[in-house]
Amino acid sequence: MAMTQDELKQQVGQRAVDFIEDGMVVGLGTGSTVKYMVDALGKRVKEEGLNVVGVPTSDRTREQARSLGIPVKGIDDVDHIDLTIDGADEISDDFQGIKGGGAAHLWEKIVATNSTKNMWIVDESKLSHQLGSFPLPLEVIPYGSSQVVKKLAAKGYKPEVRMRDGQHVLTDSKNYVVDLHLGEIDHPHELANELIQMVGVVEQGLFLDTVNTVIVGRPDGPEVLQAR
Amino acid sequence: MAMTQDELKQQVGQRAVDFIEDGMVVGLGTGSTVKYMVDALGKRVKEEGLNVVGVPTSDRTREQARSLGIPVKGIDDVDHIDLTIDGADEISDDFQGIKGGGAAHLWEKIVATNSTKNMWIVDESKLSHQLGSFPLPLEVIPYGSSQVVKKLAAKGYKPEVRMRDGQHVLTDSKNYVVDLHLGEIDHPHELANELIQMVGVVEQGLFLDTVNTVIVGRPDGPEVLQAR
Repeated sequence: MAMTQDELKQQVGQRAVDFIEDGMVVGLGTGSTVKYMVDALGKRVKEEGLNVVGVPTSDRTREQARSLGIPVKGIDDVDHIDLTIDGADEISDDFQGIKGGGAAHLWEKIVATNSTKNMWIVDESKLSHQLGSFPLPLEVIPYGSSQVVKKLAAKGYKPEVRMRDGQHVLTDSKNYVVDLHLGEIDHPHELANELIQMVGVVEQGLFLDTVNTVIVGRPDGPEVLQAR
Repeated sequence: MAMTQDELKQQVGQRAVDFIEDGMVVGLGTGSTVKYMVDALGKRVKEEGLNVVGVPTSDRTREQARSLGIPVKGIDDVDHIDLTIDGADEISDDFQGIKGGGAAHLWEKIVATNSTKNMWIVDESKLSHQLGSFPLPLEVIPYGSSQVVKKLAAKGYKPEVRMRDGQHVLTDSKNYVVDLHLGEIDHPHELANELIQMVGVVEQGLFLDTVNTVIVGRPDGPEVLQAR
């Protein structure tokens, strides 16, 4: 019987916690796949007495981890992170990624940047030859955001301010999200550099040269890929 | 009789409003020198019936402009800004600047970037041969800020988190300010690029290739310098 996308997510979430060792400081990503991973980690903490500290990348992951009895610390209260496990919205053949569909990419990037190793867990629908089919999320300061959007439109980047129920979607840092409908990203490093230089852009969703291990949910079982 | 620093600031504030023409959209900076300029602009609006729209770069400048009867719009409610008049904390021989002593450099940079022309008004103590004697302010996301500070310290940039009365100074965007005690900045463009690439750094206080006109307060009267 075919596995649903949800079952693939659950499968990689469970597989990922095999990589967590006793004593580790673990960055906890955000999103529907990570939710299964945190569930599985909570189970190991409870059943095996696994000793870990979780560093959450969003308010909602923090709440979930706490509710499962996983000890949690803020990014500013640890001196290192051994391994961060997070989802991704799109991963290219050469293991570059787009994140931010859940509007948590700023905090996710802050945690990823401070991690010795990074692992992404995804169902197979997230793999693509070239980045760009998933809209690239930017985190933008509300003050002046319409000017930023105007400039992005003039560049041909097809910006769309993310709304929900007629309200701006706000990140945990209380900024707006602007999604760029690029179609194809030919030069991700150059694009990342151009976007981050724009005044008012706090962060952009390209995660370049970041991930070490990718676990892909496949109908015949999770596949572990070594990226770098 | 020697003029005080305050008198020099008042002098350039008053001189600056001579450059404001009827019908202009004017970016209003932030700080002690700008305060005199806004006072003088309020006088022209009241006495001459000057027709302008002010775009303030901070909550405090907005309050001052409103109290003087200057019509005010937000950066997102205008389609252009003709001229922005702001202060600066340090200006080099080649007209590069450091701003952010008042913790308003993010909004100031957003307004400056969207202005056709930029003017800085300073007393002569702000002029220096080479940038760096004034500590370079960064605006930093609170989440993960201690990791950013650690990395800045490792680079030798002598970071100091700005505090007041035992509390973090917060920008109008609710971020922290970190001042870098660099002493001398040899390559401002490279430094700006390096700092803005750091995850968690929202903006940095180097205003490069920005200013068109500088008015300097001198004991023998204001000097108008054409920068670019």
